[in-house]
Amino acid sequence: MAQIKIGLFGFGVVGQGIYEVLRKSVNANAEIVKICVRNPDKPRKTQADRALFTASADEILDNPAVNLIVEVIDDAEASYRIVKSALLRGIPVVSGNKTMLAHHLPELIDIQKQHNVALLYDASSCGSIPVIRNLEEYYDNDLLLEVKGILNGSSNYILSRVFDHHAGYADALRQAQELGFAESDPSFDIEGYDSLFKLVIITVHALGTYVAPERIFTYGISTIHDSDIRYAREKGVKIKLVAQVVKVSDEHFTMFVMPEFVSPSKYIYSVDDEYNGVVIRGECYDRQFMFGKGAGSLPTASSILSDIMARLHDYRYEYKKRNYLRKPDYTTDITLKIYARYRTTDIRRILRFEKICEQYTGEESNYVIGEIALSELLAKRPQLTGDDVFLANIPVFFLSRDN
Amino acid sequence: MAQIKIGLFGFGVVGQGIYEVLRKSVNANAEIVKICVRNPDKPRKTQADRALFTASADEILDNPAVNLIVEVIDDAEASYRIVKSALLRGIPVVSGNKTMLAHHLPELIDIQKQHNVALLYDASSCGSIPVIRNLEEYYDNDLLLEVKGILNGSSNYILSRVFDHHAGYADALRQAQELGFAESDPSFDIEGYDSLFKLVIITVHALGTYVAPERIFTYGISTIHDSDIRYAREKGVKIKLVAQVVKVSDEHFTMFVMPEFVSPSKYIYSVDDEYNGVVIRGECYDRQFMFGKGAGSLPTASSILSDIMARLHDYRYEYKKRNYLRKPDYTTDITLKIYARYRTTDIRRILRFEKICEQYTGEESNYVIGEIALSELLAKRPQLTGDDVFLANIPVFFLSRDN
Repeated sequence: MAQIKIGLFGFGVVGQGIYEVLRKSVNANAEIVKICVRNPDKPRKTQADRALFTASADEILDNPAVNLIVEVIDDAEASYRIVKSALLRGIPVVSGNKTMLAHHLPELIDIQKQHNVALLYDASSCGSIPVIRNLEEYYDNDLLLEVKGILNGSSNYILSRVFDHHAGYADALRQAQELGFAESDPSFDIEGYDSLFKLVIITVHALGTYVAPERIFTYGISTIHDSDIRYAREKGVKIKLVAQVVKVSDEHFTMFVMPEFVSPSKYIYSVDDEYNGVVIRGECYDRQFMFGKGAGSLPTASSILSDIMARLHDYRYEYKKRNYLRKPDYTTDITLKIYARYRTTDIRRILRFEKICEQYTGEESNYVIGEIALSELLAKRPQLTGDDVFLANIPVFFLSRDN
Repeated sequence: MAQIKIGLFGFGVVGQGIYEVLRKSVNANAEIVKICVRNPDKPRKTQADRALFTASADEILDNPAVNLIVEVIDDAEASYRIVKSALLRGIPVVSGNKTMLAHHLPELIDIQKQHNVALLYDASSCGSIPVIRNLEEYYDNDLLLEVKGILNGSSNYILSRVFDHHAGYADALRQAQELGFAESDPSFDIEGYDSLFKLVIITVHALGTYVAPERIFTYGISTIHDSDIRYAREKGVKIKLVAQVVKVSDEHFTMFVMPEFVSPSKYIYSVDDEYNGVVIRGECYDRQFMFGKGAGSLPTASSILSDIMARLHDYRYEYKKRNYLRKPDYTTDITLKIYARYRTTDIRRILRFEKICEQYTGEESNYVIGEIALSELLAKRPQLTGDDVFLANIPVFFLSRDN
């Protein structure tokens, strides 16, 4: 059986996790031959032989003994350069960089085909939950209708602290950072970009279509307020940051990332703390729910290990659904029912609602509940940046099929 | 791309589901060319061209146009003959027959290797939940510690009626039969054999080892009594029929099927009605939970469809774990803590407990809670057939790792 010789890029939290996981895996038949980091002499928690380290990417890319690149660096631009270079040289790559993938997948898919080389990235979406692999291999048929879930552990941790432990938002965010769930710049997580990038990748494998991140409505949780939490509690629901891609007809699908009122009857209601949960809905099988640790050093590393071992058998994504005869097109021409809370920003002058269902004016804040086109939300997204505004999806509409 | 030409054996609930599902799947590139049934002229709910039907197995096996056999008949012996014949002729097979597989897997694996032909059977375990495929492909490493779950929808439906809806056992069983969840002979489901056979198959893909069904302690729910339900309610737990395979050390694993007291903090606590739920636990990634419809015409058919489509890409199970360097051995030399309720059968004289923790004697029934070797339970299994006896696992021991 082939022996995997890994050139590892990055030795941060995930890189060190991979080093640990490979040591536990006597049957993996894989070893790290070189690790590229910015500063080989920086002291690290995980002890590894100094001779393994290099600061030169080429020392790995030019090494004929390396037959797999594992790339787990933070910097999306550097990740792109490394992954592309490796693939162009015909070296297969395992990557966990969702930002890079969400922006460059079409080109990287083309390169994979032209150079007959594999790029695997199951770890990029939901850590240890095998979402990509199952969408690619197991739900590789016409029955798939929807993938919906909580894809970001940090924001979910914060919301759990707020809802279940009555913590204040600022305290919850600080706790998440202390526990290492949130980045030092938390906006990536709490503004929904992390979920968005995962959703872009998932959609390629769910429906065979790439939609660029900037075309997708994304709204995070950073402006959530006590009044929103109180409102949700009164209604007996939780607020979760939800990413979803949904077939709305045979011809169209839609997708967006947005806080959502989640009722207790829904599977994702019980996805708390740093966990991720994904619901895959299809004709015939209804709903499948996958739940697990979505982030963290070892869960992510274990997912990378699954990709590494898949290379022992020359596994690659075939992107079969890109060749489907009837592929639905992306649309934002659907109607959502949303909750829009505001104070000084006059949300009623910004957003053109198709129908107002409820409105409330109070001393502390106001809200509107109404029906609105997703295209309208996307168009007005740049005007929805006020600290005094918070939006949440109320899943009743095209989602009235008990989503 | 290859076109799949299917010879279908069986046109019962699942066979008709496959027929329906393939009609929905414009991209499946698969068609049924012949259907073998005992009586081609029997009227059926699903209308299909009479010319498709035959009563002759050879008419399919000898047909050079058929490049895939899909076998979904009830009769395990007939299933074995058909599957073996097809494989020996080099025709790949998709099968859903867990009874047949659980008894003949070692031979069928050998035939697959010798004749370089594929046998896929994801539908045999947990219907639409992709347990086998994920154990084979995604959790194909040394990190796996345990697979545990509710694998039988019928018995779970019955227990849900009893626990959540306060139905009597007999009523619940009748309801399950009316809804088509339970076989007309329900013993297969409620005595735990269905779960057992699935567990045998799962273990081959989880740990690479086949253990014959008769070597595994199996105890069902048919003798559950109001007093057991009352007891569980008082303790704030539910009784579920649970199948599990667990690594108990680097050198050993154990497995058994048995009712279990499940506390609300466990993932499987919320697996109700006809649903299945499986927890996959491993080093590094902790617990992954997969949940979905485990049985029924269309969920099972959708799983069969996934196997059919996998054949478009020549997918086969590699049974990689069978070649692991360090493979744990099966043991029953572990201690469980169990609840044993009885009335006339003197359970204390049959079972040699290592330690008695509690005992209760009442007018209606008695129970003992104690520690006992799994090997002792297995050895005494033939004596544990009394209608007045009910056993349940209390997961504290080797399962004290918060299973």
